Amino acid sequence: MAVSPALRTAEVIAVGSELLGTTRIDTNSLYVTEQLSAIGIEVRSKTVVGDDRQSIADLCRQALQRADVVVLTGGLGPTDDDLTRDAVADVVRRPLVEQPAIVERLAARFARRGMSMPEINRRQAELIEGAVLLENPHGTAPGQYLEQDGRTIVLLPGPPRELKPMFAAFCEHVLGSRAGAHRIYRTSLFVTGRSESHVDEAVQPHYAAWRREPLPIETTILATPGQIELHLSLRSDDAAAAALRLREASATLARVLGPDVFSTDGRSMEEIVGALLRARGWRIAAAESCTGGLMLSRLTDVAGSSDYVVGGAVLYSNELKTSIGLVPPELIRAHGAVSEPVAVAMADGIRQQTGAEVAVGITGIAGPGGGTELKPVGTVAVAVVAGDGPARVRTFSLPGGRTQVKFNASQGALDMVRRALGG
Amino acid sequence: MAVSPALRTAEVIAVGSELLGTTRIDTNSLYVTEQLSAIGIEVRSKTVVGDDRQSIADLCRQALQRADVVVLTGGLGPTDDDLTRDAVADVVRRPLVEQPAIVERLAARFARRGMSMPEINRRQAELIEGAVLLENPHGTAPGQYLEQDGRTIVLLPGPPRELKPMFAAFCEHVLGSRAGAHRIYRTSLFVTGRSESHVDEAVQPHYAAWRREPLPIETTILATPGQIELHLSLRSDDAAAAALRLREASATLARVLGPDVFSTDGRSMEEIVGALLRARGWRIAAAESCTGGLMLSRLTDVAGSSDYVVGGAVLYSNELKTSIGLVPPELIRAHGAVSEPVAVAMADGIRQQTGAEVAVGITGIAGPGGGTELKPVGTVAVAVVAGDGPARVRTFSLPGGRTQVKFNASQGALDMVRRALGG
Repeated sequence: MAVSPALRTAEVIAVGSELLGTTRIDTNSLYVTEQLSAIGIEVRSKTVVGDDRQSIADLCRQALQRADVVVLTGGLGPTDDDLTRDAVADVVRRPLVEQPAIVERLAARFARRGMSMPEINRRQAELIEGAVLLENPHGTAPGQYLEQDGRTIVLLPGPPRELKPMFAAFCEHVLGSRAGAHRIYRTSLFVTGRSESHVDEAVQPHYAAWRREPLPIETTILATPGQIELHLSLRSDDAAAAALRLREASATLARVLGPDVFSTDGRSMEEIVGALLRARGWRIAAAESCTGGLMLSRLTDVAGSSDYVVGGAVLYSNELKTSIGLVPPELIRAHGAVSEPVAVAMADGIRQQTGAEVAVGITGIAGPGGGTELKPVGTVAVAVVAGDGPARVRTFSLPGGRTQVKFNASQGALDMVRRALGG
Repeated sequence: MAVSPALRTAEVIAVGSELLGTTRIDTNSLYVTEQLSAIGIEVRSKTVVGDDRQSIADLCRQALQRADVVVLTGGLGPTDDDLTRDAVADVVRRPLVEQPAIVERLAARFARRGMSMPEINRRQAELIEGAVLLENPHGTAPGQYLEQDGRTIVLLPGPPRELKPMFAAFCEHVLGSRAGAHRIYRTSLFVTGRSESHVDEAVQPHYAAWRREPLPIETTILATPGQIELHLSLRSDDAAAAALRLREASATLARVLGPDVFSTDGRSMEEIVGALLRARGWRIAAAESCTGGLMLSRLTDVAGSSDYVVGGAVLYSNELKTSIGLVPPELIRAHGAVSEPVAVAMADGIRQQTGAEVAVGITGIAGPGGGTELKPVGTVAVAVVAGDGPARVRTFSLPGGRTQVKFNASQGALDMVRRALGG
């Protein structure tokens, strides 16, 4: 094969009628994009198409006119509506050839499970003439790739657990060496406690300047539940220079945004809080009302969290706030269940019950019912007690529906813990 | 305008370089598909493309060769990289014309917020010659649609809260009357406690027969966390006949799969359990260990759940299992913290503490650490006590990583509550 120029651009075609409905979405392209961009290949467009031979072929043909690499995912199963192999064979005008070695391997795979191979699975042993096999240790559908007029076409199985290891190996061993010296480097910062437009206003002057530099930094702002994410990326053939430039840019943003930046390495809020607790050798407990256990559930999503999470209580009813939460009933009568004094009493009570060094109390109105003029839906009082310090207490006014209020209340509470621990 | 034949097919083009990265995904197309399929128009393919005028135009041109309706989302903002208007104008070879009435409305919108309109926003007042304005009460980017050679092109703003009401109104008032009498009708069943292949085996004979009927039913099986979803849809010009046929098919699947079907109307497990509790006038409490509060958090995701959720405890440490959970320490010593007797004691203890009619105890190993040969990661014991009935107890062996084990344990526990309540 002649030496081709460096690969620069790619398009992704996801095949499957189920991806054109209302219940399922193509997420394979995110992984494919991540892998390609790590070796400096840019994804220019991505398409979803149904199980229709002609449509797949048309789209593949058009993609080959624009991109160096065309990645097709899905449609490699054994049934009649798995048509990716046939469609690509049509495009390159080559026959499909059954490979006895693959038939044998498929049969052995079925035999290991005490089954004989259904006749329809033979289709999965067909390679387009001249294509190279990509082994699939996680399923029956092998992948394949081929060259046509200097372009590379890759066929990958749809299930993510089969696609991912196959494509990672393909990028490393096949595409990597042909993608040129340029790579795409990335870093991110996560911010909480500010609106997207507030963050945008603070970072735009820097973003604008960086885009005009000789080594331009691509920037995005992304609002996700409970946080604003800033993503920076840089295309370069010099790993050390790229890393340095991204570190500088990240430091600039961290300085501009101050302590509202809680993560500069991709870790989630619950991981950051967990690491701060671990560093101090402190344990945490919580008494949650409107969040219904969500804050403790998020903390325990982190592996190893049993080292620092003691547990706590979900005090949904006022009776439980008093019995398990040790909140004096007269306090609830005087201030209402959603109030700063009750949040502090919940934190104090659960600390007393558990002996944890850090305790959190959360009480609020998640909605849609239960709001009043003085305390509308979204009002959430949070108290944090840590070590010997005074109780920190804050009342949030959170926008959105019930699950959004719950999530943002848990995020606000975790962020108060982070700040109390000096994070 | 001449009367056109009924609209049958559509393609969706999502515009925005941010949708080609690794952090963001086009979800607008799900809503667009739902609305179109409700009026019988089938989405044949969907594409994501960056902010590049030529690429947008090329894709739009190709889509117009195949589909009756082409929907473009995004790229209608005021900045230089918002190019959808320009690209579509290129395709139909018509000029963009600034509309004084729109300029006025935009200026008024800014004025209401005490701001003057930035000059760049004038671009949003440009309509392609002959296009019809689609008002945007939720943002500055108006939509527009136009006819070209019998095809309909629609331009929608990218933010979902702006796109959704605009497109719903467009489907109802503009497309609906031209889409013919056919509509797509849907129903779904949710199943838990069986593997996808086990469900598949049970339903395939029916699926195969239904696809061959004169009024064929389209069927899919979709594995989502904690459940298998069966989706049925049917294209028909007779609403009553379609509803009847789907009701029959749904009843057949419910009979084949028995009590593993927990929902036939799209409601989630936590909604189903909540409705069963409400119907009996019973309240629920839980003592959770490995799920870390996730089960109570899910129950409290449902609006109005404070009527039947008392609360409970997250007993992560063994000390808390004893102090708040009232589990005798000798029971933990004899059987280990992850055991059926401890799960039952947790349920009994939290019932005693709360007085709830239904109580749940969950204790298990979420991993990745903590597993043993006898009790590997994924071992979860769940106990449910309801009314005067005997304790129901079960040990699950759950696959997957930590968050998967947590979710599936909460799902298994909720499903045991459902069955205990006769659901």
